[in-house]
Amino acid sequence: MYPKSLKELINELMKLPSIGPKTAQRIAFYFIQTSLEECQKFSERLINLKIKLKKCKICFNFSENEICGICQNIRRDSKVICVVGDQRELVAIEKSREYNGIYHVLGGAISPLEGIGPENLHIKELLVRLNSEIKEVILATSPNVEGEATAIYLAKLIKPLGIKISRLAQGLPMGVDLEYADEVTLAKSLDGRREL
Amino acid sequence: MYPKSLKELINELMKLPSIGPKTAQRIAFYFIQTSLEECQKFSERLINLKIKLKKCKICFNFSENEICGICQNIRRDSKVICVVGDQRELVAIEKSREYNGIYHVLGGAISPLEGIGPENLHIKELLVRLNSEIKEVILATSPNVEGEATAIYLAKLIKPLGIKISRLAQGLPMGVDLEYADEVTLAKSLDGRREL
Repeated sequence: MYPKSLKELINELMKLPSIGPKTAQRIAFYFIQTSLEECQKFSERLINLKIKLKKCKICFNFSENEICGICQNIRRDSKVICVVGDQRELVAIEKSREYNGIYHVLGGAISPLEGIGPENLHIKELLVRLNSEIKEVILATSPNVEGEATAIYLAKLIKPLGIKISRLAQGLPMGVDLEYADEVTLAKSLDGRREL
Repeated sequence: MYPKSLKELINELMKLPSIGPKTAQRIAFYFIQTSLEECQKFSERLINLKIKLKKCKICFNFSENEICGICQNIRRDSKVICVVGDQRELVAIEKSREYNGIYHVLGGAISPLEGIGPENLHIKELLVRLNSEIKEVILATSPNVEGEATAIYLAKLIKPLGIKISRLAQGLPMGVDLEYADEVTLAKSLDGRREL
């Protein structure tokens, strides 16, 4: 029903995450109405990303240089390493503006179902970084099954080195109604209650 | 927080319809994990679309040729013209498999708020097509304010030519619960009731 070139673009768009057939069609129609220059700019940016983006040699954060901006920043506390699953988690923590240490990006989380084991993550490289200078390792993987499994695995590996290990606090998120909180979150928030 | 090339792509993605910041980020990360070849294929398809896609000289449907497949198809009834706002509406009607005539794509609908008047639509070209051969014009613009206004405008123009004019039936959609139907739809479905 669609001309070949339009159908092909819609098919490409449908491969993208969170894009279904209707949205793919809407985006393709947007591109039709956009100027050729805008579309070329889009293409260039995409290819540019693939060519320029590398992983930092120290922490595996995305970077256009060998070493990322965070690892290069001498104002940051290089004695505290925050371990995250991927770069999105790193960005989420950066946005909180609460953290001034450095990072280590694992590149995923242990997930036997998806065939991701510890050997597929940057765990060896983390252990190499844990010299006597390091004061604390914060395990900031997501509090889901895979993230928890990864944190437990890492804690077991790091404990013998005598470095302080911590995990992000779990409890009630801001602005929530107590009655709508799930049981596990509520149990965690009771367990981790603080004296005032 | 993001390297420049990544931020630039996310900004481009956020220009697309139905893509917010979170989805843009998710798609950018998808591209990072995809091979360079796949990204190049995506770019090529996008540019290919811009270069190849034209509008049919007769009905203004999208086509890679001067005349679209529907206008070229001799099995279709060229005496009935279905007038639609854009190509998505044409595709929706084609998918119903109920229609065997030809089309005329207006390229939008009359909308004073958006500054779209009759002179911005392919209305002149429609009138040129309405020779003595044409038996019926179906006004299939969407049943919203703009689509209705366009249909009424066209009906007034075409009526003096003595050609039969029809409008898509309005009423209850399939599978709906009567109690949840809105008043206007219900009123339309009563008004247009059929004898069995």
